Amino acid sequence: MIQAKLNTNWELGFHTEKDSLPLEWNPASFPGAVQLDMLHTLEEPDWTRSDGFRQFRWMEDVWWTYKTSFNRPSLSGSERLFFSSKGIDYAFIISLNGRVLLQQEGMFRHVDLDLTTRLEEKNDLRIQIAPVPKSHHEGDDRSQANRAFKPAVSYGWDWHPRLVPLGVWDETSLEIRRDFIHEVRTRYSLDDSLESADLTITGRASSGVQSLSVRAEFKGMTVHLKEFEQEAGEFRESIKLEDIKLWWPAGLGEPDLYELVVSAFDAEHHLIDEQRSTIGFRKIRLVRNTGTEQEDPGFPKSRLLPPITLEINNRKIFAQGSNWVNPEVFPGMISDDRYRELLELATGIGFNILRVWGGGIVNKDFFHEWCDRNGMMVWQEFPLACNDYPDDDSYLFVLKSESRAIIERVGQHPSTVLWSGGNELFNSWSGMDDQSLPLRWLNSICLELTPEIPFIPTSPLEGIGHGHYLFYDPLSNEDICQIMARSNHTALTEYGVPSPSDAEIIRRIIPQEEIFPPSPDSMAWIVHHAFKSWQDDTWLCPEVIEKYCGKSRNLEEMVERGQKLQAAGYRFIFEGARQKWPYCSMAINWCFNEPWPAAANNSIVQYPALPKPACDSIREACRPVMASASFPKYQWQAGEILKFDLFILNHSCTDTPAGKMTITVNGVEIRTWEFEEVKGNTVLKGPQVEFLVPTQDRDQVIADMVIALKVQGHPEWDSIYELPIEA
Amino acid sequence: MIQAKLNTNWELGFHTEKDSLPLEWNPASFPGAVQLDMLHTLEEPDWTRSDGFRQFRWMEDVWWTYKTSFNRPSLSGSERLFFSSKGIDYAFIISLNGRVLLQQEGMFRHVDLDLTTRLEEKNDLRIQIAPVPKSHHEGDDRSQANRAFKPAVSYGWDWHPRLVPLGVWDETSLEIRRDFIHEVRTRYSLDDSLESADLTITGRASSGVQSLSVRAEFKGMTVHLKEFEQEAGEFRESIKLEDIKLWWPAGLGEPDLYELVVSAFDAEHHLIDEQRSTIGFRKIRLVRNTGTEQEDPGFPKSRLLPPITLEINNRKIFAQGSNWVNPEVFPGMISDDRYRELLELATGIGFNILRVWGGGIVNKDFFHEWCDRNGMMVWQEFPLACNDYPDDDSYLFVLKSESRAIIERVGQHPSTVLWSGGNELFNSWSGMDDQSLPLRWLNSICLELTPEIPFIPTSPLEGIGHGHYLFYDPLSNEDICQIMARSNHTALTEYGVPSPSDAEIIRRIIPQEEIFPPSPDSMAWIVHHAFKSWQDDTWLCPEVIEKYCGKSRNLEEMVERGQKLQAAGYRFIFEGARQKWPYCSMAINWCFNEPWPAAANNSIVQYPALPKPACDSIREACRPVMASASFPKYQWQAGEILKFDLFILNHSCTDTPAGKMTITVNGVEIRTWEFEEVKGNTVLKGPQVEFLVPTQDRDQVIADMVIALKVQGHPEWDSIYELPIEA
Repeated sequence: MIQAKLNTNWELGFHTEKDSLPLEWNPASFPGAVQLDMLHTLEEPDWTRSDGFRQFRWMEDVWWTYKTSFNRPSLSGSERLFFSSKGIDYAFIISLNGRVLLQQEGMFRHVDLDLTTRLEEKNDLRIQIAPVPKSHHEGDDRSQANRAFKPAVSYGWDWHPRLVPLGVWDETSLEIRRDFIHEVRTRYSLDDSLESADLTITGRASSGVQSLSVRAEFKGMTVHLKEFEQEAGEFRESIKLEDIKLWWPAGLGEPDLYELVVSAFDAEHHLIDEQRSTIGFRKIRLVRNTGTEQEDPGFPKSRLLPPITLEINNRKIFAQGSNWVNPEVFPGMISDDRYRELLELATGIGFNILRVWGGGIVNKDFFHEWCDRNGMMVWQEFPLACNDYPDDDSYLFVLKSESRAIIERVGQHPSTVLWSGGNELFNSWSGMDDQSLPLRWLNSICLELTPEIPFIPTSPLEGIGHGHYLFYDPLSNEDICQIMARSNHTALTEYGVPSPSDAEIIRRIIPQEEIFPPSPDSMAWIVHHAFKSWQDDTWLCPEVIEKYCGKSRNLEEMVERGQKLQAAGYRFIFEGARQKWPYCSMAINWCFNEPWPAAANNSIVQYPALPKPACDSIREACRPVMASASFPKYQWQAGEILKFDLFILNHSCTDTPAGKMTITVNGVEIRTWEFEEVKGNTVLKGPQVEFLVPTQDRDQVIADMVIALKVQGHPEWDSIYELPIEA
Repeated sequence: MIQAKLNTNWELGFHTEKDSLPLEWNPASFPGAVQLDMLHTLEEPDWTRSDGFRQFRWMEDVWWTYKTSFNRPSLSGSERLFFSSKGIDYAFIISLNGRVLLQQEGMFRHVDLDLTTRLEEKNDLRIQIAPVPKSHHEGDDRSQANRAFKPAVSYGWDWHPRLVPLGVWDETSLEIRRDFIHEVRTRYSLDDSLESADLTITGRASSGVQSLSVRAEFKGMTVHLKEFEQEAGEFRESIKLEDIKLWWPAGLGEPDLYELVVSAFDAEHHLIDEQRSTIGFRKIRLVRNTGTEQEDPGFPKSRLLPPITLEINNRKIFAQGSNWVNPEVFPGMISDDRYRELLELATGIGFNILRVWGGGIVNKDFFHEWCDRNGMMVWQEFPLACNDYPDDDSYLFVLKSESRAIIERVGQHPSTVLWSGGNELFNSWSGMDDQSLPLRWLNSICLELTPEIPFIPTSPLEGIGHGHYLFYDPLSNEDICQIMARSNHTALTEYGVPSPSDAEIIRRIIPQEEIFPPSPDSMAWIVHHAFKSWQDDTWLCPEVIEKYCGKSRNLEEMVERGQKLQAAGYRFIFEGARQKWPYCSMAINWCFNEPWPAAANNSIVQYPALPKPACDSIREACRPVMASASFPKYQWQAGEILKFDLFILNHSCTDTPAGKMTITVNGVEIRTWEFEEVKGNTVLKGPQVEFLVPTQDRDQVIADMVIALKVQGHPEWDSIYELPIEA
């Protein structure tokens, strides 16, 4: 138990040689980053403006030293002084009074150093941080990260500036502790009916302990208590909980949690130490998608598609959600409040899953605790992305240690339902494959530590789709409706539609004189991902906005139109994937949030936590029960025959009664559909509707056709779509 | 070191209850099987005749006890008496003088029991064998094997009778030993140039040892010797060998081997123990197939195909070979001579790989030693096949122990180039998938023990083909040429063409009165896999023989024609796969051998080791350098236009010079091809040849068109094909 934390003032300085000393020292904040402690040295303090982020570039290639000094605290008999950190980024050496205590490569392992026996009257504690790890120096890009177990995204991505954080990024302190119980681990197994759980609690007690108790609490009430004599040494206790409440993902039940408290008592039965952990009981399987259980007829035979349907507590789930990326360029800046704001937005949309994308960091504890409490499923990737990570021993050594630390951080959370080795590793732009030792090792270590959680080596796998990332693809001359119409995927785990950010954001980051019209040669627009980020005009795509909405007269109009297209596109995708349930079992868009103010991005939430209109349209598309339609294309011409299919999507747990749907176009009823009962977790496909696209007023370049599906007695299931008609 | 083996007489009896005793005892032979010791009890001694194998059926469900008695041998100071066995099938209990020494489930773990301290004047040693493991008793089929780590094939397959062996199946003895060195393991790593090897030898020495030596020998010459003081305890020595000779697969270089000898000496420098092991230095990778390195254009993106090209010592290899199955129903009967005969046949054909199919046993040591010495690559599957092996703890416990034992047996052999979890596990008829814990554990244990050997979870994987297994498929109305023409696989790892066995074999196993014409209702033909084995008329396929060759007048004619069709079909397949190199990197036919006299089978070698004519045609198709053609179909009609492509296949290590090929049909020259130099390991595609199929003599129902490719100056590269013309 922590008795007290020492107030310490840390200072930071840089040096060009490992063994030299900083010329000057600056006040340092924990958690943070070396860059954040140097903000006062920037010429342009708002580094998010224009290419201000480049001011940090020189900081990558120097050494950094943090230091603090403190007097020996007075410690009672069993008290010890620890230096404890949940994360230091990336390779570092910790020394006390000139003596090296730890040398480590890897930002995810907890550091926990007992300083007690090494203390002097006056103490000098230092953390020396090595320069940013780079496998080469030919050009600043993500391939420099391919020998480090460090998020590749900060080396530069099509929506992330080149800005590589270093330094103390998670909770860190000098603390006086009296620890009597150590390495407490709880494992459980559920009976087949999922009604009872057998728990095994293991750990180690220090001398001074006379007895231990294990207490299970549910909503603050003790539901099980067991006390037993225990002297110093390892312990292993089993308890059985009957009539358990399961942890359910949002929308399918309560995400019920238990607290497990292990308490240590001394000979006088005084409480001397206590460790709490949270447990959520759930059974996870990754199962074959319905419709993929049989081979095609004929020979030769190949294999069936890999499974990608999440089954929680024996119920198959349509996973709808988003790709989570770093909410800050500097992970040290991510606060609990930022996590809460973003996660509440995600839940509010109706999402039940977040894919924590492998290009970014592993999140801090608060993120996972929030997901546990709110039934948000987490697909956790290891920090490998779009690179060829090697088989060599030095990389594998770090990978093995760091992945164990990540599994310790994340694997005990009931919200963790899937491990993945990383992002797009089996694609040409990465170059890894099934034989790559890093992925074989990750599979192996996940199996050893959390056999109850499925593991996939990467996404996409066969049958899974990544992309498209555009509303309209000029290469294939298809819009998002056309792409969805031909999609036959078991899961869409990345796909997106871009939009400009709000005009106020753009005005803050782009110099006034370059704002409108946006030029593909404007450096400020370029570095904020409006142009040349991925393909030529991504992510702003002004020609696409013009194609569907006409010429914009000013920034505000262009932004409004671009965001409207994004909102429309995302709705088609989410509904389109749901319509294909249970063959398709996931719709996870690229991406949810963003780490800094982009000028344009596929994200649906702008930095720091501002929803785009797409959040509303996706909320519409994610209602548990709803009327839905699938359109073969987006834009129409007068006189064309529009045919579209009708659906009732029921991803709730309850059956919905038979009813009647009325379909109108521009307010005129064109057909009705008397539909039968729809079982929970089922999609009912209805009849095809066919009608002639009406002629529009010649004055309008582009007008909208409003198609409404109205369900008698259930206005909350109604759906309204707007499709443009080209004059 | 073994000092002596005790002569022991073993006896065997059965009992219906675990704890009862046999009513009578029969002499037992080691290695063997309980069934073989009971042969004298059979009514029909030739159990391979008709359905004679059914006489063994009752033996599955009783208990068996082996026993022997022996007097305490006189043992000098450091001598010990061991009961040692390389394999006892399947679940058993070993007891000495009524006291249980070992209880084990699993036939691949070596048993090594030190009996010394438990010996009495007269000793009674027993091995109690449990009944055949079965997960259910509803019908005799392979699904009964789905909870056991035991070859599923013996539960009945479409070419294997239902006959499940039990008992002592590998070398077993009571031996007096003096062991001073234990658990010797050698690991090596090669430098990038593959010119030197760093070896690490670890082990444990017993008390009495004063020094150890490590000696490396090459072709009987000592190339490295290191001696060092060593007392009791663990040791770890490193040596470096320079200018090493690599182990190469057959046809690509010498399969050079080193011997590593660890010797123990006492205080007087007397040799007191010695352990020898064989090492072959090779680097193995499983790499992406050429032409699969880039995604198709367009979105969504999926993953690239898994790699299936073997690269040995940095050279990509076209793997040509066959599926190896049990050469005997009773593995205890497989002798070194049987292995040698069969393996010499395989090498003689030009094969460089055997897939040791997961439905069968793991072979005895001689098999692997022979493959080491002769450059035959071994793809070793674990004994899982066509079943859904469970995630439950009791199965996983056996799997983990037994798979470690298999890796110990097989993994040190240089010929072992690929692990596979088992056969067709990702198909609907098995039901496992990427999440199945048995396969995740096998991957993990292989990685831990032999990270240098690639692992695939099963075959087929995406891109790999299994089947077809017929010369002509009535369902798709395609012959083997047509199927090969549309095949676009990275590897063909199972495919076959059936044929009848030699008439003499058939006359031995089918009652005289049922022999001709073969009736699909004849029980003897059916149980010998001529009918109803897989599809209706497999494997005899009399209608296909008639379709291409006309009505047969007697057994001998039908056999000759069926074997001719098989020979032709296999040739098209092997050449067809080679023509697609390097996109296609493997041609491994189903199957090489067979465990008993089948009436008809896809095998190319008949029981026990009699080659079919297909061996000759495949030898033609597997010549390192050869002229080759691909035909769009097999049978032609007069007046059709036959178009076929020409190739030079060069899978040798050397470039072949430019030259000239002349193509004749029925002796008439129809075209020449002046071809350029062909690099080693390369296929050159030539022009398309086109000609009018000639009219045949009206009297002949079917006549052959003889197409010859002749290469000037290289008759050994010539190829001649016969295609039938239907009148």
